[in-house]
Amino acid sequence: MAEIIKAVSASIEKIDPNQVRKLIDLLVNVKSRGKKILVLGAGRSGLVGRAFAMRLMHLNFNVHGVGETITPAVEKDDILFAISGSGTTTLVVTAAKIAKKVGAKIVALTSYPNSPLAKCSDHVVVVYGRTKLAERRDYFSRQILGVHEPLAPLGTIFEVAAAIFLDALIVELMSRLGLKEEDLKTRHATIE
Amino acid sequence: MAEIIKAVSASIEKIDPNQVRKLIDLLVNVKSRGKKILVLGAGRSGLVGRAFAMRLMHLNFNVHGVGETITPAVEKDDILFAISGSGTTTLVVTAAKIAKKVGAKIVALTSYPNSPLAKCSDHVVVVYGRTKLAERRDYFSRQILGVHEPLAPLGTIFEVAAAIFLDALIVELMSRLGLKEEDLKTRHATIE
Amino acid sequence: MAEIIKAVSASIEKIDPNQVRKLIDLLVNVKSRGKKILVLGAGRSGLVGRAFAMRLMHLNFNVHGVGETITPAVEKDDILFAISGSGTTTLVVTAAKIAKKVGAKIVALTSYPNSPLAKCSDHVVVVYGRTKLAERRDYFSRQILGVHEPLAPLGTIFEVAAAIFLDALIVELMSRLGLKEEDLKTRHATIE
Amino acid sequence: MAEIIKAVSASIEKIDPNQVRKLIDLLVNVKSRGKKILVLGAGRSGLVGRAFAMRLMHLNFNVHGVGETITPAVEKDDILFAISGSGTTTLVVTAAKIAKKVGAKIVALTSYPNSPLAKCSDHVVVVYGRTKLAERRDYFSRQILGVHEPLAPLGTIFEVAAAIFLDALIVELMSRLGLKEEDLKTRHATIE
Repeated sequence: MAEIIKAVSASIEKIDPNQVRKLIDLLVNVKSRGKKILVLGAGRSGLVGRAFAMRLMHLNFNVHGVGETITPAVEKDDILFAISGSGTTTLVVTAAKIAKKVGAKIVALTSYPNSPLAKCSDHVVVVYGRTKLAERRDYFSRQILGVHEPLAPLGTIFEVAAAIFLDALIVELMSRLGLKEEDLKTRHATIE
Repeated sequence: MAEIIKAVSASIEKIDPNQVRKLIDLLVNVKSRGKKILVLGAGRSGLVGRAFAMRLMHLNFNVHGVGETITPAVEKDDILFAISGSGTTTLVVTAAKIAKKVGAKIVALTSYPNSPLAKCSDHVVVVYGRTKLAERRDYFSRQILGVHEPLAPLGTIFEVAAAIFLDALIVELMSRLGLKEEDLKTRHATIE
Repeated sequence: MAEIIKAVSASIEKIDPNQVRKLIDLLVNVKSRGKKILVLGAGRSGLVGRAFAMRLMHLNFNVHGVGETITPAVEKDDILFAISGSGTTTLVVTAAKIAKKVGAKIVALTSYPNSPLAKCSDHVVVVYGRTKLAERRDYFSRQILGVHEPLAPLGTIFEVAAAIFLDALIVELMSRLGLKEEDLKTRHATIE
Repeated sequence: MAEIIKAVSASIEKIDPNQVRKLIDLLVNVKSRGKKILVLGAGRSGLVGRAFAMRLMHLNFNVHGVGETITPAVEKDDILFAISGSGTTTLVVTAAKIAKKVGAKIVALTSYPNSPLAKCSDHVVVVYGRTKLAERRDYFSRQILGVHEPLAPLGTIFEVAAAIFLDALIVELMSRLGLKEEDLKTRHATIE
């Protein structure tokens, strides 16, 4: 566990503050204009995305998860927030391209700034960690299946770093939006 | 298949128009007051509920599925729309009671007007079909596991009748809200 | 509701018994060889697929829903059972093509035997009902968004007919596998 | 982010190795006897649970997520693996009690060894982090709504620590089961 934490810390220190600032601007902006955020990711990245979406909902963002049953259509000026360590997940890239065609802004969280996902995105935040996959880029038969996730211990640095980064981002967003924890109580609870 | 259709037709003919009228009033009313509808059901009833929720979303209702990842809290004057053939599904009844405590209105779709779910509901629409289960009410060991769904061919009449009833209800709601299919295009599509 | 039932009955009568027989053979065969069935569909077709998958699970099939969190990889000789009225849903077709490359058998339930989905499938069962969409084939901007579902009353004939067909198929499968309802009790219940 | 990492590290250091050893024994044992693991959690804990379940699936465990559509019934000697920081989430505790009645073993991951969840469990692994909630135990109106999750930055220590702990557990399980990453390739990928 110490090894995982060390690698996650190293990954987080490398995140570019300018990329983060622009991300916050984009998110605050989409909220102020009454537009939606759709969060997208496959496998474990999808779970990280949904946790982030829950928090955005608590901050009164209009946010949905792609792949949930009841998700409205992506529209012009919405944000598609796509999470993929490798940036190559077939269906994530496909969905990003579709959303781009209707005028949505694509924001990517990925380890690879030159990946297909990053290349079709309007803004990219690079979170390192998905290194083992890089060595395997040529394993075509596995690429074609869409999702490959290296095993622990070091295979999940991207997802853990992304989760911590997005939690910290929520605090920044609260500050920017002038929200305190007390303001948010009513949207917290849910029946489960 | 003919046998299923015959039983479904018989079930649908027995639905009380007064119960339907009041249901439509409740749904239109919750929309006009800017409140939410949360749809709830277990197993196949849950799938019927989600299909209905998708349609309500197309009609611009503020609607969510309980059990989806990103579902806001139930609040006073929201509607909890609970679907359960037997009206005894443990966790559906539990959730209905919790929602009732915060002042939400409980609306039930069930075959049993005297079931625990119906008894804690503000309004009930009876859709017959879940008859086989009734004979087995005493099988405690299966009740305690929460969900029992009799097998086809006649075991799923409730779900099919409920699905068709809710589809027809959407048409009625469109008429009441003065909506035409053209008005709704933009919310139709989704990335999947 | 009578109108919906009439249209559903008409759709079901047109299903080709030879296509059904071959479907049953394929499903029984995949079970006897210890292979998996993965069920796939977008929007309401996805819900119909999940209801079918639940029933297959009750019959002890090794079955999973694509898009559920915990879904194993598709492998050679597995069946990908894809449901799409129009047969054009972008991501369903994409997934079918990926699965085909690893040697899975693609089985399609669709209204259009010449659709992209049907064309890449090993076996097709045609269930009519998705007629309104056909007239709109040229609405490119909506096609590109992946899923278009016409509204009720007549827009959901495909899904309702597919749901009833698949329920009836379960009865046939029980007969073919020599299963009685009593044999299946233990897999019925679930915690929800 | 540094603050989150520091708190997570502190939480992880306090995990009792004896509790972990017994957990590994229970998991290896359930696998060798051909029984199932059902993973359960609400909100963000549910997402952590699903990520763990995905990994267990890669190690060829028979594992399912409660709340997924296609989840078989819990049976005698299965493990219900319940994750709840507070150990009070209404529906998690309800489901644990139901599973206990049919003879399943309940394993809990929680910050509170005296919580209702821990008290009905056969084995508990304590992961600290859910401290803020403790101060609010008396806010009945929020308790009754089932889930309360304190906001970032320090509100999500439990979930992040639990996620890292469970990732490290997978490595231990691989070692105990004599598995290498190469053995697992075929179950990795999935269509998404």
